[in-house]
Amino acid sequence: MKNAIDRLIDKIKETGNPTVMGLDPRYEMLPECVTNKYPKTLEGAAQAIIEYNKALIDETCDIIPAIKPQIAFYEMFGVPGMKAFEETCKYAKEKGMIVIVDAKRGDIGSTAAGYSNAYLGKTKIGDMEEAIFDVDFITVNPYMGTDCVKPFIEDCKKYNKGLFILVKTSNPSSGELQDIKLESGEEVYTNVAKLVEKWGEELRGEYNYSSIAAVVGATYPKQLEDIRKTAPHTFFLIPGYGAQGGKPEDIALGFDKNGLGGIVNASRSLMCAYKSDRWKDEFQESDYAKATRAEAIRMKEELNSVL
Amino acid sequence: MKNAIDRLIDKIKETGNPTVMGLDPRYEMLPECVTNKYPKTLEGAAQAIIEYNKALIDETCDIIPAIKPQIAFYEMFGVPGMKAFEETCKYAKEKGMIVIVDAKRGDIGSTAAGYSNAYLGKTKIGDMEEAIFDVDFITVNPYMGTDCVKPFIEDCKKYNKGLFILVKTSNPSSGELQDIKLESGEEVYTNVAKLVEKWGEELRGEYNYSSIAAVVGATYPKQLEDIRKTAPHTFFLIPGYGAQGGKPEDIALGFDKNGLGGIVNASRSLMCAYKSDRWKDEFQESDYAKATRAEAIRMKEELNSVL
Repeated sequence: MKNAIDRLIDKIKETGNPTVMGLDPRYEMLPECVTNKYPKTLEGAAQAIIEYNKALIDETCDIIPAIKPQIAFYEMFGVPGMKAFEETCKYAKEKGMIVIVDAKRGDIGSTAAGYSNAYLGKTKIGDMEEAIFDVDFITVNPYMGTDCVKPFIEDCKKYNKGLFILVKTSNPSSGELQDIKLESGEEVYTNVAKLVEKWGEELRGEYNYSSIAAVVGATYPKQLEDIRKTAPHTFFLIPGYGAQGGKPEDIALGFDKNGLGGIVNASRSLMCAYKSDRWKDEFQESDYAKATRAEAIRMKEELNSVL
Repeated sequence: MKNAIDRLIDKIKETGNPTVMGLDPRYEMLPECVTNKYPKTLEGAAQAIIEYNKALIDETCDIIPAIKPQIAFYEMFGVPGMKAFEETCKYAKEKGMIVIVDAKRGDIGSTAAGYSNAYLGKTKIGDMEEAIFDVDFITVNPYMGTDCVKPFIEDCKKYNKGLFILVKTSNPSSGELQDIKLESGEEVYTNVAKLVEKWGEELRGEYNYSSIAAVVGATYPKQLEDIRKTAPHTFFLIPGYGAQGGKPEDIALGFDKNGLGGIVNASRSLMCAYKSDRWKDEFQESDYAKATRAEAIRMKEELNSVL
């Protein structure tokens, strides 16, 4: 099997689209034509989420290379929610999409290994070994330092998986810790970007990017540009486009001269296209997945116009 | 209902024991007399974990105030593992124990709200509201800044729950980011400790500690002492005792002159007491829970000798 970042970049090239669809199924955002079919219980909500996610995947798997389920929106529906998460990941992989789980896990070594087993590797039960959620990439929080990232990197090597490590996040308070200046004059995010570049050395693929990648928000274009220079072999997952305010020309700063180097996340703008000012008159609620496809094509064109 | 930190401190006073039992059920640590009863599958592993956890809870709920399941060790068994997690939390609460979920969650505002709904608050499904895992406390990672912590704090107010926010973790590389000096000369961990103290102002209880609490490792005694001074109303969850090297006299630095202010985590030393050099000759494998009780009493006496 090819390494994870090559699989992702191949898929981006094949679709001509550096977009990842965030699958964050807030219940109140789901179309009533879906939720009304199921009881108002955790099980019913989970079934509605599965139906909705599968419809979006069916309608976009030929034009969007990857999905990014945010696991919080599945955990909040308890055990049935986790089943919906599992089924969503499995279905997207069957349809040929790359799956990036947004879980922002991070813990001391042996615990990090537990998380890594869950999402990337395998769990041992006596002499048996079983893959659990078995996705392509997971997002990781580096606050606890190197020994919390290493077990994930080991599994990336062993199972051809990848990481997106938080370097500079897109939220308003991200600077409180991430922008702090070290005695060297360097910011924390620069320091983390260098660590990520270094951790990724052994996992570079045919496009010269590594499967050990980074999360860098579109909402801080200066930092996005800086980090592109600091970490030239580090691929970026770029959140913050659309609803959070990141503009296409800002996003372009995260890409290289060949138009590679990043994948842009859009969650609400794709998932809820059917409710958006742009598409609500053109599509009925029951055509929600077609509205998502229309928005995906519009976004793809917008991104490609600046890359 | 009393606020979360008062419930926890009441329970510590009632048992005379500032210990939290980490329930991190690594499969290979479980006694064979338990694992052999069940098939070597995810479902079988989950059933073994439930039996083991319940036996430990039964044997210690009168002498240990709280449990701390590390959720990675449940997620790694997939959906059946999450069921075991849910059942463990429920059972411990029924037995009167305080439940602290070690999940180290943290994400941008709306996603943090999703996590908070899952563990502390309630999930809305149309007009229905349902509590999901409904535990007392969750651990939170502050790397993304204030706006990622706020939704958890809101639920703490609304549902009388609490947080343990990572300030200085016990692992070897924790200093890479947490010990960085700011331009003010202060370390990142001091800065985070001050933030936690401030966030907790509105949630102080009858012992003058807040339900917005902190994780501070026993393996860095100087920092533990510093943070006790920086954050006098902040209660500490103290990992790193025992297997990781934290000594009782180090731990005492995190407590106040009344012997309050912290709870000490022990995972392996309690869960696997039956395999330890100290207890393995005295207890048969099938008496694993009694060995845990004996070790809990020994640990309690050791802690009380220095507090």
